Amino acid sequence: MSDVVHQKWWGWGVEGIAFHHENKPDFAPFVRKAIGLDLYAPAGSPPSFEDLNVPESNLSDDLEEKLRQLVGDHHVNTDDMNRVVHTYGKGLRDLVRVRAGDLPRVPDVVVYPANEDQVQGVVDAAVAADAVLIPFGGGSNISGSLTPPADENRVVVSLDMGRMNRVLEIDTDAGLALIQAGGLGPDLEEQLNAEGWTMGHQPDSFKHSTLGGWIATRSSGMQSDKYGDIADIARGFTVVRPGQKVQLRPLPSTSTGPSVREMIIGSEGRLGVITTAWVHVHALPENRDVIAYLFPNWAAGLAAMREVSTSDAHPSITRVSDAPETAFSMATRKESKGISGKVEGGLFELLRRRGWDLDKVCISYIGYEGGAARVRAEKSVVGKIVSSHGGIKLGKGPGEMYDQKKFDTPYIRDFLLDRGALGDVSETAAPWSRLGEVYTATMRAAREAYDELGVHGFIMCHLSHSYHSGACLYFTFAFPPDPGRDQLEQYDLVKSAIQQSFVDHGGTLSHHHGVGTDHAPWMEQDVSEAGVDLMTGLLQSADPGRNFNPGTLIPPHREW
Amino acid sequence: MSDVVHQKWWGWGVEGIAFHHENKPDFAPFVRKAIGLDLYAPAGSPPSFEDLNVPESNLSDDLEEKLRQLVGDHHVNTDDMNRVVHTYGKGLRDLVRVRAGDLPRVPDVVVYPANEDQVQGVVDAAVAADAVLIPFGGGSNISGSLTPPADENRVVVSLDMGRMNRVLEIDTDAGLALIQAGGLGPDLEEQLNAEGWTMGHQPDSFKHSTLGGWIATRSSGMQSDKYGDIADIARGFTVVRPGQKVQLRPLPSTSTGPSVREMIIGSEGRLGVITTAWVHVHALPENRDVIAYLFPNWAAGLAAMREVSTSDAHPSITRVSDAPETAFSMATRKESKGISGKVEGGLFELLRRRGWDLDKVCISYIGYEGGAARVRAEKSVVGKIVSSHGGIKLGKGPGEMYDQKKFDTPYIRDFLLDRGALGDVSETAAPWSRLGEVYTATMRAAREAYDELGVHGFIMCHLSHSYHSGACLYFTFAFPPDPGRDQLEQYDLVKSAIQQSFVDHGGTLSHHHGVGTDHAPWMEQDVSEAGVDLMTGLLQSADPGRNFNPGTLIPPHREW
Repeated sequence: MSDVVHQKWWGWGVEGIAFHHENKPDFAPFVRKAIGLDLYAPAGSPPSFEDLNVPESNLSDDLEEKLRQLVGDHHVNTDDMNRVVHTYGKGLRDLVRVRAGDLPRVPDVVVYPANEDQVQGVVDAAVAADAVLIPFGGGSNISGSLTPPADENRVVVSLDMGRMNRVLEIDTDAGLALIQAGGLGPDLEEQLNAEGWTMGHQPDSFKHSTLGGWIATRSSGMQSDKYGDIADIARGFTVVRPGQKVQLRPLPSTSTGPSVREMIIGSEGRLGVITTAWVHVHALPENRDVIAYLFPNWAAGLAAMREVSTSDAHPSITRVSDAPETAFSMATRKESKGISGKVEGGLFELLRRRGWDLDKVCISYIGYEGGAARVRAEKSVVGKIVSSHGGIKLGKGPGEMYDQKKFDTPYIRDFLLDRGALGDVSETAAPWSRLGEVYTATMRAAREAYDELGVHGFIMCHLSHSYHSGACLYFTFAFPPDPGRDQLEQYDLVKSAIQQSFVDHGGTLSHHHGVGTDHAPWMEQDVSEAGVDLMTGLLQSADPGRNFNPGTLIPPHREW
Repeated sequence: MSDVVHQKWWGWGVEGIAFHHENKPDFAPFVRKAIGLDLYAPAGSPPSFEDLNVPESNLSDDLEEKLRQLVGDHHVNTDDMNRVVHTYGKGLRDLVRVRAGDLPRVPDVVVYPANEDQVQGVVDAAVAADAVLIPFGGGSNISGSLTPPADENRVVVSLDMGRMNRVLEIDTDAGLALIQAGGLGPDLEEQLNAEGWTMGHQPDSFKHSTLGGWIATRSSGMQSDKYGDIADIARGFTVVRPGQKVQLRPLPSTSTGPSVREMIIGSEGRLGVITTAWVHVHALPENRDVIAYLFPNWAAGLAAMREVSTSDAHPSITRVSDAPETAFSMATRKESKGISGKVEGGLFELLRRRGWDLDKVCISYIGYEGGAARVRAEKSVVGKIVSSHGGIKLGKGPGEMYDQKKFDTPYIRDFLLDRGALGDVSETAAPWSRLGEVYTATMRAAREAYDELGVHGFIMCHLSHSYHSGACLYFTFAFPPDPGRDQLEQYDLVKSAIQQSFVDHGGTLSHHHGVGTDHAPWMEQDVSEAGVDLMTGLLQSADPGRNFNPGTLIPPHREW
């Protein structure tokens, strides 16, 4: 199946990489306390592919022949495994369904174009055959954007962009690079870094998500405070549509009416296939430090982050975990050996004597980039703000630890699933003035949902991605479901309670995971009914035949 | 006519304020040299309103009665003067036409709503009557966005937002303010400043443009380096549409599909009427300095601005004028008295001795805001960059002069028109790598157009609004037309040559003036045909009856 490497069909990352807790002595006790799960009990293992009942491909001979002519035999694939890999993203719902062999509708064919002309050919052929086309990047979507509607009777083509992964050009004067949409984070950064450049875009999914996917879902990376969201970074692009291309040249800014650029960003495949993009790139920073701090409690951490956002410092990362996430973070550390464990013990003893309630401690990470003078000045500004909110500096060591582990968390979802527990994430953004309320209401909503289910659930949160007027709150939740009830029904109850809390308290349904099918029910509450009218009008006029990733973005009753 | 104060029907600003050159001894010689115009020859004066032949209002009794019920008798107005004021913006084309009494289609009525409910009533009544509705802010548009199509047979309603000019709420925690769309720049800043806040948004039109107009046209202010374009500043808003409202809550960032926010921004009235907006506000800065610098030539100035944009400094203003604009700027100064004149003479003598060609000197202004330490550090970073490109610091005095005069330039258009010369502006944005090319090509295009017309023309330019990947180039041009040919035909030839040069060399048709009818012909070249397809699909689905400001944004052959 082409030469594109895919993630596991049943979980995050490539085969052979997984979370394990043997070298993390505090993890099992933490999990037992958090969700009552015994990690020393025998664990299940991922299902066997042979047990799946994969529906046969409905690809017509005509369309298959046409596709083979367009991209070459080697790049048109109907293998069961490949089609299953292209059926789901990696959200909890996806993983539960695929592990259960719940495959009501699987793409009929996976096509791997090598260039823009081939994409145009595939798009035109698919539309001519009234097929459904679903663009596929790294497959790490967690909002249900990749799954064909269960009742889709037409041929479904998954268009895998993985072969189009090159940095084509770097405009060093403008700090812009022209990059193919199918490149994964590490592909692109490796090519850019070799020339001294970086995009600086680091979503949690970095290793398994693509530039095209970032644009199509309005991604944001953990260094967005400096580098911006993808909506800031992607200045122009080419989007293949039936018989034509949208071509936006890279412009720093423009006043050309309703933004076509901002219609494409977030379009999740419904307006066409993004093939290349001009993105901001930056010279690799002279210095790059991540410093850890501790706050006595969540309110102090939030207030400090808000103050940093209006200060004369411009950090690259601002992040603070609530107390449960801080405890989780401590519990995932490798065995503290010798001196560092003792230093930490001493620190905690000191804080206790100072009157800190150690159950409420919140860890924070702030990133600094730039020349030595700037980094020094910003650390000084931030240091004063941290102190004024009762916080203390932990230093570089823990900051580096965070930096090394930052892409590892998604593996824990599979680890928990193997042991029968459901875990997932939900994130929002809201004005600074509402963040405390969003947090409190969402924690309460999750606890009420757990109580309703009678399960032992856990939820934790961090603030990240600071902006002038607000920030993102990122929640992670997990619980061992009641074995007597449907798993996804229980998951939906918790997930929905969290999402509803976001929109009820001034937050958006998602800061950077996108809409997909999972969040579509909240769209009218988020952008108003009249806003969904505008969006639906745009989609319908651009795709009257519903050939492009139908079912995503807008609520089902809005589909035409 | 309500209590809203309007600009002159024939020119910029309110009655009684105008440009004059009596106290600027260098201006007349400069103008004579630049465009061969003798300012000491007898000048014409603005035409007399009595000479105009204003078409009668076609407002039906039914609609008039309905409007009077909705907003009150005092706020429904059909006076000739008021209808003429609402017929045009203040572009050169507008002024030439209105002064010539060219009034093929004048709004039939001007309505002044007091609140959102009244706007909803007017919108619904207008659409029910199949009337055309043109929202009107400060009337300073210079892209032809305000003029009813000459062949419009339906009733035309100008919806003047001037009564809705209040700051409704300041969210001090989030740095957000909820403001009514009809407030002019000074209205809003006065209310915000009183509470210690500022939007920091200062377009050239500041005194005669409104928040709603800024949003509807994708405005940008001269301090955009710090405060952002209006597209960054306006985080949420209410837009009244037929029978419904788009309501976007203020969100720092979101991943909810194609951006409805960015569909409304730049919509120039075609998607409805913006009534209120949540915008970023900032605490008034502790320090605010504008420092002037001189560069030996344009290339050095451009290169320095580019370097500042990637440096560790984040100025609030970056601006450099080319040599012709520097000369213009010198020529508009009031008489240099005593010491300052002598100091300047000494400086220029010194530069000459250093080998500078004084005909090539370029003046630059950089703005600094923030705490003392930050301002000091940024001045130091910028100072080194300026030096490394051969530039020198002039200091605060000339910077303050720029700051005081910054809103005065538009008056010169009327001054020249009174004397028979045509002057206007065109601006673009492009990547740093293309700015030199855009500049050279555009200067050449204008000169070629002047040669073709056989006129003595002038063009000057400055760079402003720096971004990571590029900046805005702002051109001002003037010429005394050939008296034997139609004035606007000559203007169109020059203006078109400039616009075409922008899109041919990697620039956009407008960085912040918008599209209107004047720039619509270049839309397909800017955002591609397929991009205009998407935009047209959006507009058509939202306004199938073409009731909202028809004729703007998209090329005429795209209208449905």
